[in-house]
Amino acid sequence: LGSTARERSAERGFALETASDLDLHRWLSRRAPRGRGIVLGIGDDAAVVRLSGWVALKTDPTIEGVHFPEGLREAATIARKAIARAASDLAAVGAVPRYALVSLDLPPGTSARFARRLASELLGASRRLGARLVGGHTGVRRGPLEIVVILVGVCSRAPRSRRGARRGDRLLATGSFGGAMLGKHLTFRPRLAESDALGAAVPIHAAIDVSDGLALDASRLAEASGLALELAEVAIPIAPAARRLARRERKNPLSRALADGEDYELLLAVSARSVPRALSAARRARFPLAVIGVFRRGAGLFLRTRQGTLERLRPTGFVHRA
Amino acid sequence: LGSTARERSAERGFALETASDLDLHRWLSRRAPRGRGIVLGIGDDAAVVRLSGWVALKTDPTIEGVHFPEGLREAATIARKAIARAASDLAAVGAVPRYALVSLDLPPGTSARFARRLASELLGASRRLGARLVGGHTGVRRGPLEIVVILVGVCSRAPRSRRGARRGDRLLATGSFGGAMLGKHLTFRPRLAESDALGAAVPIHAAIDVSDGLALDASRLAEASGLALELAEVAIPIAPAARRLARRERKNPLSRALADGEDYELLLAVSARSVPRALSAARRARFPLAVIGVFRRGAGLFLRTRQGTLERLRPTGFVHRA
Repeated sequence: LGSTARERSAERGFALETASDLDLHRWLSRRAPRGRGIVLGIGDDAAVVRLSGWVALKTDPTIEGVHFPEGLREAATIARKAIARAASDLAAVGAVPRYALVSLDLPPGTSARFARRLASELLGASRRLGARLVGGHTGVRRGPLEIVVILVGVCSRAPRSRRGARRGDRLLATGSFGGAMLGKHLTFRPRLAESDALGAAVPIHAAIDVSDGLALDASRLAEASGLALELAEVAIPIAPAARRLARRERKNPLSRALADGEDYELLLAVSARSVPRALSAARRARFPLAVIGVFRRGAGLFLRTRQGTLERLRPTGFVHRA
Repeated sequence: LGSTARERSAERGFALETASDLDLHRWLSRRAPRGRGIVLGIGDDAAVVRLSGWVALKTDPTIEGVHFPEGLREAATIARKAIARAASDLAAVGAVPRYALVSLDLPPGTSARFARRLASELLGASRRLGARLVGGHTGVRRGPLEIVVILVGVCSRAPRSRRGARRGDRLLATGSFGGAMLGKHLTFRPRLAESDALGAAVPIHAAIDVSDGLALDASRLAEASGLALELAEVAIPIAPAARRLARRERKNPLSRALADGEDYELLLAVSARSVPRALSAARRARFPLAVIGVFRRGAGLFLRTRQGTLERLRPTGFVHRA
């Protein structure tokens, strides 16, 4: 029952030097948003909010040494990534974030100052994406710093699954791919506005966000829809960071674009007829949008090369050509 | 970007000897509940469910070495506690569980067999409490086994906060207190049925579940309501386990009842007039219910002793008398 003892000592708030002496929950409850749909918030046993219709639910952990470098203590950076990771998934299904909960595990010895800043940045990062923080849990336990974010959103249109792509549909991508480990994985902006603009412009048959790599996530979309997917090498937008890394390693930048992951871009399946309207919606809203593939009868992920040949791609995205 | 690499190797599913080789997410998505309000479930970027009205949201972590003994690998026990902890909070606000999400962190070297059993037990434990598992995340990372459970519920009556107790209200308790570390902390049944029966019988002004100890949680209820609370020593139901521990230590069993925690009983504030109806509702539904205190003008937690004197209690519940 270590937690109870530990949590109790935290409740009492003696020295306020380490997080375990800080009543972070009480601190948060004084700063938590109220009103407008929030019936119960931080400080009660559970949050209660008013909602109706299609409610989207997403939980995603952000873990020290996995999703951000071990020892990093930039509260704003960590909080933003934690919230944005979950928001990217809401964008994929076509939902808008409304409420957030966080389960915050701090390693022993975390300073009270950092714990407060992290909580404060989580409040801010949620708010900036339209979600009000209504609950969660904070505690100290051995292990890496870990933030489990729960986002609750609403869909104003029918939610998009991974399963709806149709034969002949085109694959759209909202940005460029590869090299996210050079920085974008900490600074990306979830494609909520892009998702909304495209959803308003055209029927979207299926969607996914790219967290594990363009090839792997694209192949998931194809597999869930029971189709093959052919990516066009010439059309895949390669991020400058991917080119930089590839030059350094004398490797094919395409491999990085296909395999690196953490791009947090959206892949969307739309009919060929919808493509012009989707592209002009993107131009109006000033975001990049590329047509990078086509769904075919069959199964598997393929690459139409610059030379016009068709290669089968492993979902890991590794390409043998240097 | 360790996670991406690690998760990717998990997706491929080579040896299936450790959890990191197991595509637990895909395994779960084949067993996940569908239909009846679930628009998107496990296997899509986010869950989407149909909900309307007062929606209750709760997240609670269950951590190895904190909420269950280090090294324990009884999947059913761990899963049941993880789900029940969150359900107990929903019972406090008067909500009924409908959907669950879990974020499951496994330590390196966890066997694939145990990981599958844990996932399967989480599905079952949710279902038995009325919640269908619609999403979550599974992964391997260094650190203790940890399950963050998110329960989404609905309130058919106005949700109960901790803040609504009125002067003269009586404090009701659904069970007995103390000694939970001898077993109850792993086997308790969240008081969902009791919460519903009492909510149907009488207006409940405020409520809380007892996880951190009767004294501490009772004092939170009083403080949130801006009142003092007087507990009656003769009326506090002391669990047999608390008596057993106290005998062993030659200490006052009352201290254990007040301070041990993890009882997961409900404390409810109702008007004095409502008490007879509440008690008869409990008799009809065959669950224990005791009147253990009264809310007074002022602040703080007090104990009316057997001798009739009034003692101020520290919220930790420690009582000096042996």
